[in-house]
Amino acid sequence: MSARPATEGQAARAVIIAVDAQGGDNAPEAIVEGALRAASEHIHVLFVGRAARLRELVGGAPYAEIVDTPDVIGSGDEPAHAVRDKPQSSLVVAARLVAESRADAFYSAGNTGACLAAGLLTVRRLKGVLRPAICVVLPSQPRPTVLLDAGANAEVQPAHLRQFAVLGRAFCREVLGVAEPIVGLLSIGEEPGKGTPQVIEAHKLLAADLGPAFYGNVEGRDLLNSTVDVVVTDGFSGNIALKASEGAAKAVLGLLKQAIAQSARAKVGALLLKPDLVRVRAALDPEEYGAMHLLGMNRPMLIGHGSSGARGAENAVRYAARAVSGHLVEAIAARLGDVASGPVAASDPAPRAPA
Amino acid sequence: MSARPATEGQAARAVIIAVDAQGGDNAPEAIVEGALRAASEHIHVLFVGRAARLRELVGGAPYAEIVDTPDVIGSGDEPAHAVRDKPQSSLVVAARLVAESRADAFYSAGNTGACLAAGLLTVRRLKGVLRPAICVVLPSQPRPTVLLDAGANAEVQPAHLRQFAVLGRAFCREVLGVAEPIVGLLSIGEEPGKGTPQVIEAHKLLAADLGPAFYGNVEGRDLLNSTVDVVVTDGFSGNIALKASEGAAKAVLGLLKQAIAQSARAKVGALLLKPDLVRVRAALDPEEYGAMHLLGMNRPMLIGHGSSGARGAENAVRYAARAVSGHLVEAIAARLGDVASGPVAASDPAPRAPA
Repeated sequence: MSARPATEGQAARAVIIAVDAQGGDNAPEAIVEGALRAASEHIHVLFVGRAARLRELVGGAPYAEIVDTPDVIGSGDEPAHAVRDKPQSSLVVAARLVAESRADAFYSAGNTGACLAAGLLTVRRLKGVLRPAICVVLPSQPRPTVLLDAGANAEVQPAHLRQFAVLGRAFCREVLGVAEPIVGLLSIGEEPGKGTPQVIEAHKLLAADLGPAFYGNVEGRDLLNSTVDVVVTDGFSGNIALKASEGAAKAVLGLLKQAIAQSARAKVGALLLKPDLVRVRAALDPEEYGAMHLLGMNRPMLIGHGSSGARGAENAVRYAARAVSGHLVEAIAARLGDVASGPVAASDPAPRAPA
Repeated sequence: MSARPATEGQAARAVIIAVDAQGGDNAPEAIVEGALRAASEHIHVLFVGRAARLRELVGGAPYAEIVDTPDVIGSGDEPAHAVRDKPQSSLVVAARLVAESRADAFYSAGNTGACLAAGLLTVRRLKGVLRPAICVVLPSQPRPTVLLDAGANAEVQPAHLRQFAVLGRAFCREVLGVAEPIVGLLSIGEEPGKGTPQVIEAHKLLAADLGPAFYGNVEGRDLLNSTVDVVVTDGFSGNIALKASEGAAKAVLGLLKQAIAQSARAKVGALLLKPDLVRVRAALDPEEYGAMHLLGMNRPMLIGHGSSGARGAENAVRYAARAVSGHLVEAIAARLGDVASGPVAASDPAPRAPA
């Protein structure tokens, strides 16, 4: 088995994404379909999974290669045990290929906890990172807001929240192309004294570190109105805020659908509105950004929703490639040093747009 | 000044609600208008505020009386100081009237923190209540879900979460008329081992107390899908979940509005859909339930959103009256004893519908 795709001449410049082809409810079909759409001269895909089926799905597609693994980690498996007990699972092998530099980034729509565990065991934390965080791009309008931590750490200390700001800002700069990302701290009131003791202390740290790039506290209602570029919070509140937002959006669209079904007049109205309703749904679709990013690791690691379809897989692979070519990990490493040695805002070098 | 309304003959059976007529962005006009709509032979309203203006607004309306107070607590005032420094403010006087049994329940759309502080100082906690909690009725479909704590306690212990279940179930029974309310614990995964150490411990307590009436963990997405009747959580996560849900619903409706504005076809469609859109908006309107309930006090206390309009005030007064006639406080007191002495589910007396 050679992990490098066949097109050796371009391999030096192409980005290689290790894709857990067995991860997620729609694996391997939708995952392969989507990832192949993203594959190109510049983005090579390494599909990790059961080769017999993958060969049928990949066919002779260019810029793609298959790594055969017998095992699969299920969505219900206990993460730490599964990673230990199934070293030949597609998820663990994909992580190992990245750890061994045979691929540049990892993507799986499988068991989130297992992705975290495999990441910590093989890809490992970037030096200086206290806690990796799950970073999710929220479809706020007119511009996206990234939220972290969305669930990796149920409890955090103020120093962790401080680092999450570094991770989130680097992500905004290198992957989303935001020149000077503004950070908000999720709390239950705008005043600096609102929240838990951890949040109140983090407010002070962030104000000192970021100066004008720190907006102050934001509230749950600010997640989708583009008030800030980065929202930092603990993984418990972040996960709940994310899922509450998704649930509320779904509830509103569900109510609308129900209302429409109740009269002929409404049905005609809905028909006329259909392209617009489709656009609203698309704007809110988590597949738009494909996956969550586990930030603070030695390589980009992306974790898709279990329900990811082809569109999600395609976008995840594209964003993974962007994280690699935008040198996200290197940018985080450089910023971590800045924070350790004092305020970073004043001495920020000019931001760089993503490749 | 006599706190009892003029209609002495009925006073013995009528419920008296003390209304902070100066609280909220739309006070006193909208508050008076709404509360007067709820006033009846059975519900008497005691308006507390600046009498000169209130007399103009109340006119000679029946079942209403005015208590003159010179001071007002602003929405931006520091709660504890404001309550101490303004004993003659409408908010504090309204709370005191309730504490002195000259009214049966309290309603204010003013400064939430000041309502809490005034409540703790005058109305006081019910004996045995560790922490009062803010309980909000979420407009989930097909039936409402109550969430507590929505912001009174940024940090809680497992024993507090356990009591919140008692408060929330009593509210569901006595005010919403739910026979056997099912409780969910907000966490970041369905498994009992997911969440913070406090949540994991609370899971055990709730399972032991409630038996089959405990659903287990719920997630942020379950707040609006009627999975359970009562969701218990700490005030930090609860406040964030509530505001994130509100923000997401607003964002979806905003996107829809934006989309509609972009074409003549869409505008015609929207016109046809208008009655349905209005219904969707109404179903999600926080004014439907009027106010949040501060549970665990010696008397029903309701705190409205600062933006409350006449509809919110009207419904708040109606729900306050229902809490009184449903003997909510007495029901909570009785249940608290049950929990202290062991599991309550098996020996639950037959539930009672609200008056």
